[in-house]
Amino acid sequence: VTPVTIAVDAMGGDYAPHEIVKGAIDGAKRHDVKVLLVGHPDAIEAELKKACIGHAQYEVVPALETIDMGESPIKGMRRKKDASIVVTARCVSEGRAQGMVAAGSTGAAMTAALFQLGRIEGIDRPAIAVTLPNLTRPTLLIDAGANVDCEPEWLAQFAHMGTVFMQNIYDVSQPNVGLLNIGSEESKGNAFSLAAHALLKQTQGIRFMGNVEGRDLFLGDVDVAVCDGFTGNVALKSAEGIAIMMNRFLKSAMTAKPHRALGAMLAKSGFAEAKRRVDPAEFGGALLLGVQGVCVIAHGGSSGNAIQNAIRVAKEGIQKNVVEKIKATQKVMV
Amino acid sequence: VTPVTIAVDAMGGDYAPHEIVKGAIDGAKRHDVKVLLVGHPDAIEAELKKACIGHAQYEVVPALETIDMGESPIKGMRRKKDASIVVTARCVSEGRAQGMVAAGSTGAAMTAALFQLGRIEGIDRPAIAVTLPNLTRPTLLIDAGANVDCEPEWLAQFAHMGTVFMQNIYDVSQPNVGLLNIGSEESKGNAFSLAAHALLKQTQGIRFMGNVEGRDLFLGDVDVAVCDGFTGNVALKSAEGIAIMMNRFLKSAMTAKPHRALGAMLAKSGFAEAKRRVDPAEFGGALLLGVQGVCVIAHGGSSGNAIQNAIRVAKEGIQKNVVEKIKATQKVMV
Repeated sequence: VTPVTIAVDAMGGDYAPHEIVKGAIDGAKRHDVKVLLVGHPDAIEAELKKACIGHAQYEVVPALETIDMGESPIKGMRRKKDASIVVTARCVSEGRAQGMVAAGSTGAAMTAALFQLGRIEGIDRPAIAVTLPNLTRPTLLIDAGANVDCEPEWLAQFAHMGTVFMQNIYDVSQPNVGLLNIGSEESKGNAFSLAAHALLKQTQGIRFMGNVEGRDLFLGDVDVAVCDGFTGNVALKSAEGIAIMMNRFLKSAMTAKPHRALGAMLAKSGFAEAKRRVDPAEFGGALLLGVQGVCVIAHGGSSGNAIQNAIRVAKEGIQKNVVEKIKATQKVMV
Repeated sequence: VTPVTIAVDAMGGDYAPHEIVKGAIDGAKRHDVKVLLVGHPDAIEAELKKACIGHAQYEVVPALETIDMGESPIKGMRRKKDASIVVTARCVSEGRAQGMVAAGSTGAAMTAALFQLGRIEGIDRPAIAVTLPNLTRPTLLIDAGANVDCEPEWLAQFAHMGTVFMQNIYDVSQPNVGLLNIGSEESKGNAFSLAAHALLKQTQGIRFMGNVEGRDLFLGDVDVAVCDGFTGNVALKSAEGIAIMMNRFLKSAMTAKPHRALGAMLAKSGFAEAKRRVDPAEFGGALLLGVQGVCVIAHGGSSGNAIQNAIRVAKEGIQKNVVEKIKATQKVMV
C-alpha cells in the first residue's frame, strides 16, 4: 500500500530548516505518512543527520530558492520558479503528494497553492480557516485573512467549506454556522454584515444560527464562524495579542515574590496544561480551503511540534476527502 | 468651592441599583466629587441605607422609568421622557452636573448623550473610546462600536479626539496614533483602511505611526488605535472572550490536582495581581468622545469598583477640560 504522501516546505518559517525537518520526520513516524522534504538538499541533509529518523518515510525534493517573508509573493514567484514553496505545491499538482504543509509567508503559500493547484469550481475565493480553542469545542474561523474585501456570496461559500471541514475533521454532524458580527440581533452590523446575514439565512446546506460576537469565538456554541478576511484577521490577532500579554503578566506576577514562585513551581503542570489548551501549535495551523488539494499553512514561528500537528491535519484532510466533499457541495449548489 | 458634580444613572447595569449606588458613593468619597444618583428614589434610598455613606456628597434625582437592555434606545427614549438615562444626561445639559456615568445599554447611553448634550462642532460622529491594557502602556481603542460604517474623515476626527484624551488623561505628550489593520505595510488592508491610511498620513495635529495589527493593541507601542466601530468592537470582544476562556482554563487546571491547588493558593496574590492588570473595571469604562460633555459608559456588568473608577475617569475628563480641548482641535482644523 502506498502511504499518504505530504510535501513539506522545509525552508519556510522562522526556525527553518531545523524545526521543520524535525517536525516533518516526527510527523511522518507518528502519523504513518511519507513526507517529501522540499528545499536545499545540503541544508536538509544536515538536519536529517541531527534528527532521529527511525522508521520515518521521507524523500528529499530539491528546490534551491526561497521566497522571503518581506518579499511580494507574486513577484517572488515569477522570478523564482524553483522556490521551495512553489516546488512544494507542484508536488501536489503533479500527483507526487496528496497534500502540502508550509510555514513562513502566508501570502506566498496561498499564492503558490492557488497557482499550482487551482480553485475548486464554484468557489470564488479560497479562504483561510483557523481552528480556535473554545471553552467547550473547537471553533473554525473562516476567513482569517485571505480576502480583505468580500462579497456576501463568498461568505456562503466559506460557510459550506467550513461545514465540510468540521463534519470531517472534528466529526460534528451538523455544525452551527455563525456570522461574526457586533451583536446577536439580526438588525446589528454594518452594511456588509447585514447583506451577508440576509444571504446566509437562505443558504441551503448549512445550519445558520445567526450572528455571533467576538466573545463567542472562544465562549460560544458556534462551530463555524464566517466573516471577511479583514475582520477575521483582526479578531485572530487581537486574541493572540491579549493571550501573550496575559501570559507575560502572569509570569511577572509569579516571579515577583518568593512564595508566589514556590506556588507556581508546585502548580507548574497546571500552567502547562492551561497553556496547551490555547496553543495554536496544537491545532495544526490554518487550512487554505477552496483549492484543489489539501494545503495546511502553519504559523511563521512554527516549532517542530506545530509542524507535526500540521502533518496530522493534512493527513486527516486527505483521508477524509475534504477537497472532494467541498466540490460536491458546490455541485449541489449549481 | 463647589465640587465637581457627576450624574450617575443608578438604574442601569446588570447589578443596578445596588452596585451602582455603592460604587457611586465610594467614588464620591475617594475622588472628592458630588454625585447625583438618578433613578427611582425608593430603590436608591434602600441602597443608601445599606451603603456606608460617611462624607459622601450626593443627591437623589428622581427618574421613574428605565430603558431595558433589549429595548430599542431611540424608541425607548421617545416613549419614556423620564427614563433614568435621559434624566442623567439632562443633568449635564442643564448644568446640574459636569459629567455623567452610565452602565447598562451602550446604545441607550449613546443616544441619550447625543440627544441631550449634542455633538461638538466639527465632529461628524461621536465615538466610543476604550482604554485597553498593554504590556507597556494603556492603549486607547477608538471607535469601539458606535459607528459601524465609517468615512475615512471620521477616523481622522477619532485620531484627534484620542490624541487629546491620551495627552490629558494619561499625560502622553505626543501619542502615537495607529490605524488598526491587518499588516504593518502601507499596502495592506481593505478598501476602507487603504483610504483611511492615505488620509491619516496627511492629517495635521496627530503623530501617525502607520498601520498596527490586532496584536499591537496589547503588545505594541501604539497609544491611540483608530478604526471603524465594527472592527473595533470585534477586536475588543474577541480579546474579552479569549481572556475569559484562558482564566477558566487556568482555574480548572489549578483545581484538577491537589498539589496544583496548593501551589495556586500560595501564589494567590500573584493571580490577583495579573488579573487586575487586565481587568476592564480598573480602567473606568469607555468614554463617548465627541459630545458636549463628559460621558463615561461603564460595562453592563459593572461592579461597584467599576463605577468608582468610572467616576474617577469622569472627574479627570472634567478637570482636564477634555471636551473644550477637543473643540479647540476642531477649530484649528476648520
